Amino acid sequence: MPDSWLDIAPDAQFGLATLPYGVYTTGAGGPRVGVAVGDRVLDLGAAARAQGAPFADAVSGPNLDALLAAGRPVWDQVRESLLTWLTDPVHEQVVRPHLVDRASVTLHLPFTVADYVDFYASEHHATNVGRIFRPEQEPLTPNWKHLPIGYHGRSGTVVASGTDIVRPTGQRKPPTEPVPVFGPSARLDIEAEVGFVVGTPSPMGERVAVDDFADHVFGVFLLNDWSSRDLQAWEYVPLGPFLGKSFATSVSPWVVPVAALESARVEQPAQDPEPLPYLRGSQPWGLDLRLEVRLNGHVVSHPPFAQMYWTAAQQLAHMTVNGASLRTGDVYASGTVSGPEPSQRGCFLELTWSGKEPLRLPDGTERTFLEDGDEVTITATAPGPDGTRVDFGEVTGRILPAK
Amino acid sequence: MPDSWLDIAPDAQFGLATLPYGVYTTGAGGPRVGVAVGDRVLDLGAAARAQGAPFADAVSGPNLDALLAAGRPVWDQVRESLLTWLTDPVHEQVVRPHLVDRASVTLHLPFTVADYVDFYASEHHATNVGRIFRPEQEPLTPNWKHLPIGYHGRSGTVVASGTDIVRPTGQRKPPTEPVPVFGPSARLDIEAEVGFVVGTPSPMGERVAVDDFADHVFGVFLLNDWSSRDLQAWEYVPLGPFLGKSFATSVSPWVVPVAALESARVEQPAQDPEPLPYLRGSQPWGLDLRLEVRLNGHVVSHPPFAQMYWTAAQQLAHMTVNGASLRTGDVYASGTVSGPEPSQRGCFLELTWSGKEPLRLPDGTERTFLEDGDEVTITATAPGPDGTRVDFGEVTGRILPAK
Repeated sequence: MPDSWLDIAPDAQFGLATLPYGVYTTGAGGPRVGVAVGDRVLDLGAAARAQGAPFADAVSGPNLDALLAAGRPVWDQVRESLLTWLTDPVHEQVVRPHLVDRASVTLHLPFTVADYVDFYASEHHATNVGRIFRPEQEPLTPNWKHLPIGYHGRSGTVVASGTDIVRPTGQRKPPTEPVPVFGPSARLDIEAEVGFVVGTPSPMGERVAVDDFADHVFGVFLLNDWSSRDLQAWEYVPLGPFLGKSFATSVSPWVVPVAALESARVEQPAQDPEPLPYLRGSQPWGLDLRLEVRLNGHVVSHPPFAQMYWTAAQQLAHMTVNGASLRTGDVYASGTVSGPEPSQRGCFLELTWSGKEPLRLPDGTERTFLEDGDEVTITATAPGPDGTRVDFGEVTGRILPAK
Repeated sequence: MPDSWLDIAPDAQFGLATLPYGVYTTGAGGPRVGVAVGDRVLDLGAAARAQGAPFADAVSGPNLDALLAAGRPVWDQVRESLLTWLTDPVHEQVVRPHLVDRASVTLHLPFTVADYVDFYASEHHATNVGRIFRPEQEPLTPNWKHLPIGYHGRSGTVVASGTDIVRPTGQRKPPTEPVPVFGPSARLDIEAEVGFVVGTPSPMGERVAVDDFADHVFGVFLLNDWSSRDLQAWEYVPLGPFLGKSFATSVSPWVVPVAALESARVEQPAQDPEPLPYLRGSQPWGLDLRLEVRLNGHVVSHPPFAQMYWTAAQQLAHMTVNGASLRTGDVYASGTVSGPEPSQRGCFLELTWSGKEPLRLPDGTERTFLEDGDEVTITATAPGPDGTRVDFGEVTGRILPAK
């Protein structure tokens, strides 16, 4: 990649390979669209106006909604312009005044969430959960390898990284009790996931093909699907998870454009049986994202996204095969990312085998599920071009006691 | 109830007892908020401005969103004003110019749908479905009488009554096949339901009590949760319905305010076991809505909403007990309304016992599930004050062939 006139440290979190989009505020003025580069944030709307860029309107709103809706040609144009502005010294004088210190900004939910769908696409995760929740049955249900299983979540409780999470309260039925009991969840968990946001909509009644993924999906981010395992276990038959998930879902504030992930694309794991034709594509959409999960600063897992059985492109095709429309701002998530190794599991349900094998932390404490005050942070990187690194930043959240 | 200076036929669909809110267009101008009265629609924004009403801004938008957000004191004030304007002859001169013929308007989706939750609250429906889908098990799952089971649906495919419904395509696995097959759904169904829309939001981390129902819920309407039984049967274990439901949900265009239903409130069926305290209220919120389902003009069912095991007030309390927030525009629906009698079942899955007992229609044809070209219409009425009738209008839709 070319060098920038901006002083970007070689090990900087956000080099030119990433250039993710977010929404920030400083002390003065309302929320605006920013691009993270090195230890700075570029005020994209102001820079685009100063440059007289044709896409200035699409990046001058209070969030990413207009950019998402603008479609792939505009997304490509913005990214190309950013690379030119930040590398060609002729642009320095106009662009530099619109950079602010990243440490000084507050980040926000970057777009308006329309629908939110959560998938269940890691074979390792689904197998582990099946063994834990339904020990008397085959761990994978008969449909699992034929379709990417998913369900709708609550979009109104998708929150920005850093938002505190109040421990949920509700019904649970311990095996030792004859009837359900009421109280704070005793098995509060995370799910380390990767999220995707739709930019270009599709009309009701039409399908989106696997190969059209990059025309519809704008970007990728990290997502923590906070989960109450005791609420979930009692409620989820027969219509799926509801209150066990709906209290909060946290997302990372920097949206990495799909275009930044060309060097991260890999073949997904072999699929057997071969999926139906509508789930086949001509291009690989496995993504080599390497996640890291930290609890109170201690690394507890390294989930490998490249191991996911179903790709985001297959999920998009499946989600629309029945004619369901897509809207700008629709979010869908991968489901918990877990690899084959115990150290690659993306939730505490698996990491502690339903609480039976507590995690011992370096500070001498043990964990089964989350305690009040615990802070969980998920990060990820992926290969960029020419040995560079694409960075996803982080999604973090701290548990507050139940009310 | 007092008489109106407007000529409202004694058997008119929308007398003064209902005064529902909707969004309409005429040949000229954009969408606006209307109130149905007799065979007219009142342009509510124009009338409120002409009257100098303090709530004029809340009813002058292109949809009901601002009125929903305005909160119960404003809802009460608007309804009280409408009753005064339409009955006291002193208002006739100012109000009459803002009435248009109802037959001349086009009706639209009345508000922006935030999240959409679908419940499963009829014991008769859940028992029938359990017998059909899981014949080897108890029909009601162990949790069913302890909590109102629900799940999130797709808010982006909630459409106005009259929208054509394209038959969905997808995977299904007939029992005779070793692997799933792909194609148009062969078991397309309806679900006759009652929908509720939230006006006043609640913050994340807080619960809404059963007794606070009328402070948060603005109004009630009819909802057809179109369902593909073959897609659903193959996909729904373990995370619940997804593509079997997400292709379309139709809603009636006139929203009946909760305040119009005082005379329709009844005790719900006895609950045994007694629900946990957070699901108990001091006031009855059963609602005596009498639904009617027509297929191509022939009445096929009379589902009684008063028979629902869980009330909308209990559903609201359950949905928020874990701290999930409410947003203005959140929709939740009752689940299929079915009574104890075969003629009271609210979907074809039950009416034809999974296709084994076809319905014979007066025109000599038979039906198991819906055929292309079929039109389904759901209507409902409820008792109003002084022997009047509250009318919910209709939700209707016609099946187009798969693409």
